[in-house]
Amino acid sequence: MIPGDYTKRLLTYRLSLTYLKETGIEPVYSYLISSETGYSAALIRKDLSRLKVRGNRRGGYKTEAILRAINHYFEHQKNHKTILVGMGNIGQAIARYRHFKEHNIRIAASFDLDPAKQKQKHEIPVYPMEKCAEIISNENINTAIIAVPAYSAQIVCDKLIRFGIRGILNLAPVHLKVPKNVFVSNVRICDELLQVIHHTKELEQQSYENI
Amino acid sequence: MIPGDYTKRLLTYRLSLTYLKETGIEPVYSYLISSETGYSAALIRKDLSRLKVRGNRRGGYKTEAILRAINHYFEHQKNHKTILVGMGNIGQAIARYRHFKEHNIRIAASFDLDPAKQKQKHEIPVYPMEKCAEIISNENINTAIIAVPAYSAQIVCDKLIRFGIRGILNLAPVHLKVPKNVFVSNVRICDELLQVIHHTKELEQQSYENI
Repeated sequence: MIPGDYTKRLLTYRLSLTYLKETGIEPVYSYLISSETGYSAALIRKDLSRLKVRGNRRGGYKTEAILRAINHYFEHQKNHKTILVGMGNIGQAIARYRHFKEHNIRIAASFDLDPAKQKQKHEIPVYPMEKCAEIISNENINTAIIAVPAYSAQIVCDKLIRFGIRGILNLAPVHLKVPKNVFVSNVRICDELLQVIHHTKELEQQSYENI
Repeated sequence: MIPGDYTKRLLTYRLSLTYLKETGIEPVYSYLISSETGYSAALIRKDLSRLKVRGNRRGGYKTEAILRAINHYFEHQKNHKTILVGMGNIGQAIARYRHFKEHNIRIAASFDLDPAKQKQKHEIPVYPMEKCAEIISNENINTAIIAVPAYSAQIVCDKLIRFGIRGILNLAPVHLKVPKNVFVSNVRICDELLQVIHHTKELEQQSYENI
């Protein structure tokens, strides 16, 4: 339905299988991964066959084999360098986020309009926006994380694309308009929370009705 | 496929339509929303009919009518109170996030093991974990945001459920195991970035091949 779904599912499988591996369940069956992830067992079997992971005669898979195949799929991303635009609250939290390192992703530089932030000490250097084009070109960067306020996100996005960025992780709560050769993934914390609130209410209503 | 997809789509439509409204396009057609959101036009028409929004004879919809219907769908969430567990980098960014207010959502309290953090000044009071059960019960809270490190997320999650939490926004990069009557939404920043990197590489390869 949406481009990127297969890749997204693989990442969900990886998280669930890491959990299943710890619980010692072996082999794993597609219906088990299905009950963990919410994807249908048929879709999971299709994805695993696309990953070239084979089950045994009874349909069981080795957890380790799936994990290895998924890691291999993301292998070429190692030592990827990206940039971070916007060092507000969310930007600073992202700058300090340790999990990128685990995946060998490095934020090479961050950018902010505020000169005061440029002077602050961060693990990642903070540059003025004017330096953006130069650093993207020198460091051969093609992805960026946008963590600026909603009102400036589209302007920043347009600039980044002009400078050569082709993949964007957008943390601003706006819809970014990009050309077809640019990939955008949106993390919308507020919308996610609205969803949680909505479904919690639904679940509570159901349990009242069942009394 | 996954529970919550309809609700999630509505939030995506809202963001796109807010953008389309600004550009002054009126009426909007399902194929236009489709090209903005990536969902199929047929699915969009189905969702809009479920929302009880009707198009004109030629299939055009009034942007404002759709937006009103979506806002109405989320209306009952107004003045929702939630809690935040974990006041590390991500937790503090969430605590300062202004967009919750726009949706009339309030973080009533936050919790952290670290007594130093409990003394820091935040807009939202920081309590020790031992206060959690009491506040959840007194304030009649049923949702929580988990922003603790990966290794303690499951323990925190189990506790929260025991105290009465039924909806969780999980920001920790782990798979949480919850009973069927609990709804979890995961924001996995690192996985989203991995996705962006992967698709950017794919897009670049395609453009090389087309030369």
